[in-house]
Amino acid sequence: MNFKEVIASIEDYPVEGVVFRDITPLLGDYESFRSAIDQMAQMAKAMDIDMVVGIEARGFILGSPLALELGCGFVPIRKPGKLPREVHSEDYDLEYGTNSVEVHTDAIRRGQRVLIVDDLLATGGTAQAAARLFEKMGAQIQGFCFLIELEDLAGREKLAGYPVKSVVKY
Amino acid sequence: MNFKEVIASIEDYPVEGVVFRDITPLLGDYESFRSAIDQMAQMAKAMDIDMVVGIEARGFILGSPLALELGCGFVPIRKPGKLPREVHSEDYDLEYGTNSVEVHTDAIRRGQRVLIVDDLLATGGTAQAAARLFEKMGAQIQGFCFLIELEDLAGREKLAGYPVKSVVKY
Repeated sequence: MNFKEVIASIEDYPVEGVVFRDITPLLGDYESFRSAIDQMAQMAKAMDIDMVVGIEARGFILGSPLALELGCGFVPIRKPGKLPREVHSEDYDLEYGTNSVEVHTDAIRRGQRVLIVDDLLATGGTAQAAARLFEKMGAQIQGFCFLIELEDLAGREKLAGYPVKSVVKY
Repeated sequence: MNFKEVIASIEDYPVEGVVFRDITPLLGDYESFRSAIDQMAQMAKAMDIDMVVGIEARGFILGSPLALELGCGFVPIRKPGKLPREVHSEDYDLEYGTNSVEVHTDAIRRGQRVLIVDDLLATGGTAQAAARLFEKMGAQIQGFCFLIELEDLAGREKLAGYPVKSVVKY
């Protein structure tokens, strides 16, 4: 499966000089979507996962079927103000300013082994914040799984010490 | 499976007088999550679907594994400004003001049979806008599938003429 054929590349989006990798054509094609989830599941199987964590919003699209494939529950990591009960929150830096990710305080039990999933590894800021968030809660981060990795942005270095898997590299 | 035991009910959220139904405990429990997706797939099987459409963001968590279960591709319906290529857009009314939903113009081909999925049927405004959006693109709306239906809000009436399925009713 050549996933790059079903990932659209949009030049200068969202800002000049950036190439946006759009996975919607991949998702819309059953064979490609199935194959991507199968490959991610294969990568994650050896990690011995209890819970799959998906980062809002595209991380939900990949993390949710991956959780079921691995026989795990699914935890959404959300943008601020979206979860109705008590949350833990973790900030991360953007190019200008900061943002944060949130999760319900009862989302996992201490010692549970989690896999963090998102569509794309770029600078790794969000993924790193997600790891800090779950480590504070006593989870064991077993690894990260991404559909796409932008190697030039060196997000993998920010996640040093964790197993990091990706299906498609640019 | 008594799903109401794994759906948290939060009084007066997000505003006074409203009971928010929180599916995160259900998602975090593999058996419940698996069973919910199986029931939704069972409901959708007879509809003869080509493509599953999920509404941002919780609709992604349910629509994505449902698509794979049904052997279909998945199309995300997104909030404004999130999709990188040419979109169709459809407005819907909120209590105060309007909002809109967007989808890539190439997300489906004319005549394709779609199932629209979200976590919750409340007033039905978003679901109805999603249906209008896809009908403009020449899709056939085969039906809607929700995890939760709030019967008092009569969203089903707004979707009259379409098959509407839900797993848990309040």
